Amino acid sequence: MPRIADITPGFYRIPLPVVLSDSMHGQMLAFELNTVRVRDADGAEGTGYTFTVGRNGAAVDAVLAREFPEIMAGEETDHIERLWHKAWWALHYGGRGGPTVLALSAFDMALWDLKARRVGLPLWNLLGGYDPRVPCYAGGIDLELPLPDLLRQTDGNLAKGFRAIKMKVGRARLHEDVERVKAMRAHLGEGFPLMVDANMKWGVDEAIRAARALQPFDLGWIEEPTIPDDPAGHARILREGGVPLAAGENLRSLWEFKQYVAAGALSFPEPDVTNCGGVTPFMKIARLAEAFNMPVTSHGAHDVTVHLLAACPNRSYLEAHGFGLERYIAEPLRIEDGVAIAPDRPGHGITFDWAGLEKIRV
Amino acid sequence: MPRIADITPGFYRIPLPVVLSDSMHGQMLAFELNTVRVRDADGAEGTGYTFTVGRNGAAVDAVLAREFPEIMAGEETDHIERLWHKAWWALHYGGRGGPTVLALSAFDMALWDLKARRVGLPLWNLLGGYDPRVPCYAGGIDLELPLPDLLRQTDGNLAKGFRAIKMKVGRARLHEDVERVKAMRAHLGEGFPLMVDANMKWGVDEAIRAARALQPFDLGWIEEPTIPDDPAGHARILREGGVPLAAGENLRSLWEFKQYVAAGALSFPEPDVTNCGGVTPFMKIARLAEAFNMPVTSHGAHDVTVHLLAACPNRSYLEAHGFGLERYIAEPLRIEDGVAIAPDRPGHGITFDWAGLEKIRV
Ligand SMILES: [Mg+2]
Ligand SMILES: [Mg+2]
Repeated sequence: MPRIADITPGFYRIPLPVVLSDSMHGQMLAFELNTVRVRDADGAEGTGYTFTVGRNGAAVDAVLAREFPEIMAGEETDHIERLWHKAWWALHYGGRGGPTVLALSAFDMALWDLKARRVGLPLWNLLGGYDPRVPCYAGGIDLELPLPDLLRQTDGNLAKGFRAIKMKVGRARLHEDVERVKAMRAHLGEGFPLMVDANMKWGVDEAIRAARALQPFDLGWIEEPTIPDDPAGHARILREGGVPLAAGENLRSLWEFKQYVAAGALSFPEPDVTNCGGVTPFMKIARLAEAFNMPVTSHGAHDVTVHLLAACPNRSYLEAHGFGLERYIAEPLRIEDGVAIAPDRPGHGITFDWAGLEKIRV
Repeated sequence: MPRIADITPGFYRIPLPVVLSDSMHGQMLAFELNTVRVRDADGAEGTGYTFTVGRNGAAVDAVLAREFPEIMAGEETDHIERLWHKAWWALHYGGRGGPTVLALSAFDMALWDLKARRVGLPLWNLLGGYDPRVPCYAGGIDLELPLPDLLRQTDGNLAKGFRAIKMKVGRARLHEDVERVKAMRAHLGEGFPLMVDANMKWGVDEAIRAARALQPFDLGWIEEPTIPDDPAGHARILREGGVPLAAGENLRSLWEFKQYVAAGALSFPEPDVTNCGGVTPFMKIARLAEAFNMPVTSHGAHDVTVHLLAACPNRSYLEAHGFGLERYIAEPLRIEDGVAIAPDRPGHGITFDWAGLEKIRV
């Protein structure tokens, strides 16, 4: 059985083509990208990555560069479940969240890529195989876009083949959110799947008020109405607001998701493979949701996540949102008539432009 | 109002005088120490620190060195509550736990030290002032110590003035734990405060079985019977095991503690000022416990924590456990007849031996 021969991290700063904004992160000028390449003794390689909205990337790099090579020296690449637990516990004190879990997510992704490439299967197939065609939506990061620009962006997304859209809410006054959602609903027509994302902006009762005000516009979900630290608050918002809830991009473990899922505190668990601990916990979260009769959606990293949702019968929409990474990937994800198609290349099928990345290395 | 002029991190590796062991971290050979010195425009300085049991320190250093100076440039040193929230949100994506929160803990501690020094008050007084004399216990890290050595260590702790002791449990067979606890109870006599710490070793039903087996020995508490990710499991262990529970050294926010406290899932919240987010959240956790009619204990960093518990009417025991840091502190904590005494020096009163630390810089 092949063993880990080399672990190579990379740390890059990706300037954003346009400034992005949401209710809690303010203006985002650049994303940080952390990559990790795991090579086995046969020379086979797998690649994983994670990203941040601009901070903590140096800490992720420190964990990947300093801790993982020591912890994983000589380990069997195929024993992903065991290695995940070894890393979790070796890094538990001072870990169990934050940059440590982002690093673990990237490492775990690299191991799954490596395993799938060695057996010559695309990841979605290796993970079980349900349907490579995954409905997806365009996730706009557009809180500060003036309404005409928001509608123009929407037309652009329709032209690109999207058949579902998410927009930001959480502006200074609820009235503004309602006007913008109303205009989007009118623009898109009845029945068009439209979601909104508040990025943790509201208190619990504010969120209930907002949900009720947005009820007439038939939203697919409201995302992250309040802080990720309050499952009981989410349960109230869901029950009293009367609109489905999505959350999960700021949860960092299977157990955090379990709190929400088992309590019925959300409608759409939304793990991010680059920060929930990797492919291993993402699939457990998806299966947990299935057991609770819940769909699963996703956050970020759509090029990899398309494989994971393609292995889940309970998959809801895949979120597609570019943060400029597509410029550094050989064959970005194809989207046709609202559907993203998991590629048939072995592994996750992402080939980074390492030479291009070299120019933006931190 | 003085502003932050400089933030200087330090990263050190402290070899342990003796190898320590517990049920989940195995053998510990060295601790990592991360310090941060915050200097204001007047030249006044505050010092904070955090530590790990051997990993993630480089990531903590990366957060302190790379993120904090940018986030805090020119801020007013006195607005600790506001700066805490600024850091929490600036670092939220990719933060909200792990090395990011350890770094924040150290930074927040430095701000409190600076504020207390500027007004010339010891920290326990600035925080409200209850009683500088805090009952404390010796926290043994002694799972692998043969029984005669454990009893010898205990005699040493009694000679040092301790009047309460905690020992490790979680050996391969429950029978061994029971024998060791039984021997310790016989050695110490009835009524002597004795606690045990399982360091997350058990499953829920295993922990219930262990608690029941240990009931005859009148334990003050069982600490961390299972993983920190399971409040519902802790609630069952407490209810069905019939022994008080302590936990918290692996919780990383006020909200994580709230889950446990509000659910009645433990008896003794046990925050660690170096990893719960700092003095600011530690005091909120202590006040939350007070509101729920619960005592509060502590983990680690006894030299600073003595001040925090000295400001809490609901303080239980302070944990004293050296990890070799006392060799690098000018005046280590005084312990007299089972009581630790918060010093009357301004701030937390810790002066590091910076020249000595320089020799173990990473
Ligand atoms: Mg979102
Ligand atoms: Mg403990």
